[in-house]
Amino acid sequence: MAIENTVEPFDKGAFRSALGAFATGVTIVTTRDAEGNDIGLTANSFNSVSLSPPMVLWSLDKNSLSLKAFSEARYFAVHILADHQQPLSDRFARRGEDKFSGLTLERGHGDIPLLEGCAARFECKTAFKYEGGDHEIFVGEVVNFRNFNKPPLAFLGGKYAVAVPRVPAGAVPAERTETEGSFSRNSLSYLVSNLHYLFERESRKIMGEQGLSLSQFYAISQLGNESPLALSVIRDNLRFAGLDLSTEDTDALVQKGLVSRAGEADHPTALDLTERGRNLMVRSSAVIKALDEDAQVGIPYSEMQLLHQLLKKVLRNLVPPGVGKNE
Amino acid sequence: MAIENTVEPFDKGAFRSALGAFATGVTIVTTRDAEGNDIGLTANSFNSVSLSPPMVLWSLDKNSLSLKAFSEARYFAVHILADHQQPLSDRFARRGEDKFSGLTLERGHGDIPLLEGCAARFECKTAFKYEGGDHEIFVGEVVNFRNFNKPPLAFLGGKYAVAVPRVPAGAVPAERTETEGSFSRNSLSYLVSNLHYLFERESRKIMGEQGLSLSQFYAISQLGNESPLALSVIRDNLRFAGLDLSTEDTDALVQKGLVSRAGEADHPTALDLTERGRNLMVRSSAVIKALDEDAQVGIPYSEMQLLHQLLKKVLRNLVPPGVGKNE
Repeated sequence: MAIENTVEPFDKGAFRSALGAFATGVTIVTTRDAEGNDIGLTANSFNSVSLSPPMVLWSLDKNSLSLKAFSEARYFAVHILADHQQPLSDRFARRGEDKFSGLTLERGHGDIPLLEGCAARFECKTAFKYEGGDHEIFVGEVVNFRNFNKPPLAFLGGKYAVAVPRVPAGAVPAERTETEGSFSRNSLSYLVSNLHYLFERESRKIMGEQGLSLSQFYAISQLGNESPLALSVIRDNLRFAGLDLSTEDTDALVQKGLVSRAGEADHPTALDLTERGRNLMVRSSAVIKALDEDAQVGIPYSEMQLLHQLLKKVLRNLVPPGVGKNE
Repeated sequence: MAIENTVEPFDKGAFRSALGAFATGVTIVTTRDAEGNDIGLTANSFNSVSLSPPMVLWSLDKNSLSLKAFSEARYFAVHILADHQQPLSDRFARRGEDKFSGLTLERGHGDIPLLEGCAARFECKTAFKYEGGDHEIFVGEVVNFRNFNKPPLAFLGGKYAVAVPRVPAGAVPAERTETEGSFSRNSLSYLVSNLHYLFERESRKIMGEQGLSLSQFYAISQLGNESPLALSVIRDNLRFAGLDLSTEDTDALVQKGLVSRAGEADHPTALDLTERGRNLMVRSSAVIKALDEDAQVGIPYSEMQLLHQLLKKVLRNLVPPGVGKNE
């Protein structure tokens, strides 16, 4: 039994939004018009059609100023944009602008302009032009192509997106257990803590030699970033990390020659690193910086950016309300 | 001047691989054949065509067993698959299988089968069938659609992928500085450490009350996961974290009543948690588990999965060679 629940009247916004559930790449399609002007626009309505003969298609709004040029063109080129080409995508999505200004161009079949720096590029000979409602569908036979093997730009839900191939379950080896106390192996906290321990491995060694307590370690870590620092600020931050700094802790840091008291003599209100303390912290932060670079080796920029983005999302879920608001 | 560098002979594998640079969603297209059999297959050659009238297209291999059914069909449905529907995608990508077996179906126009649980769904009336090399292009006029607002499955480079909309630069507020010593604010180590501190906030408070040193804290954390544990294993793991456990540290843990020595009386080779130590660790890990759940609130499963995947990539870059290989 057919359920006749056709949406009437048809909501264009809702339709567009439903279509947005289909992830796509982003392309710039270029050609050259009869007068020899370079023509180009951003499109995500691209897809592959045929392997033999090699064919691809895309569709163009019949209201587009470029319709005539593409309708008459013998050749066009489709550029699948690389992840870093979002500005180029924006430029070619706007009307009227001199889109090609300042760009280094190659020339393809029929002198069509070819852009550089993309993920892949297809030179096509127009094979078919088809009716498609308010759009015209262009099918091109691919006469030449290049794959530049760059991470591509993606588009999803009306926004630029990052797409990352999924690692099949089981393809990621179990990590070293390390200081895994209290963590289930598949939890986020477990991964984050392991990573944290690896980042701080050397700096903890440097600081660990000083026989510091947790509180003392976290206090001097703060001073490594900004020194002198008011005791009240240090203690606030320690409380945020679940710790407190006692007078004995401060005494210990001073006795170890890492920190000096600042402020009024009989009522110290701030702590400052000694030269010895500063040297330790400089060594420690240089090591962390180097590890930060090591961590990124072989990982595309877009994925690192995404990792940052996702970590910030998670952080926002965990930051206690009111924190960071001049409390 | 045209550069005539057409690839001859045309390498199909390389062509397919270049096409793979274009990210797509994944769809299942369904219809009903003249005999009343349900027909369906996985396709990523879908795209939007027209807004008014609402039209979409997809293309089908002319060798497909389903070609006849779709060629004759008045209606078909396109299901944009949700992130969790990879198994369904695999099922509909295989030939011959009874693909619909066990699935809950709705019925659409012309009694075509409609699948559940997808990201979005379009019921289409076949509008045009076009020649496309070794494929046939189907253009459908959308007569009904539904958007289920689920994170979609993506496909990139011949593999399933996760696509995540990008947060525009500046849209992510700066995070609380917290114990930021030695970290640049935009570094991965900074984000990871902040997150780590938040996860361990309460457990560090619980443990911090015991006045533990760094080494003592990491030692008892390990015992929280597995106890008793050989001293040699504990010390190996501590070394991995840049720390050492002295006899004095062990003495301190015993004196605090958190740990007891195990093994031979005059030559203890292992440590075990006391009941008091175990209670502390149970409290501590319950808190971390709860925070782990809090951290994920409002974040799609696919993004959490991706976060895990990216953290593991980074971890692999940092784990010292040889670690975890029974060294």
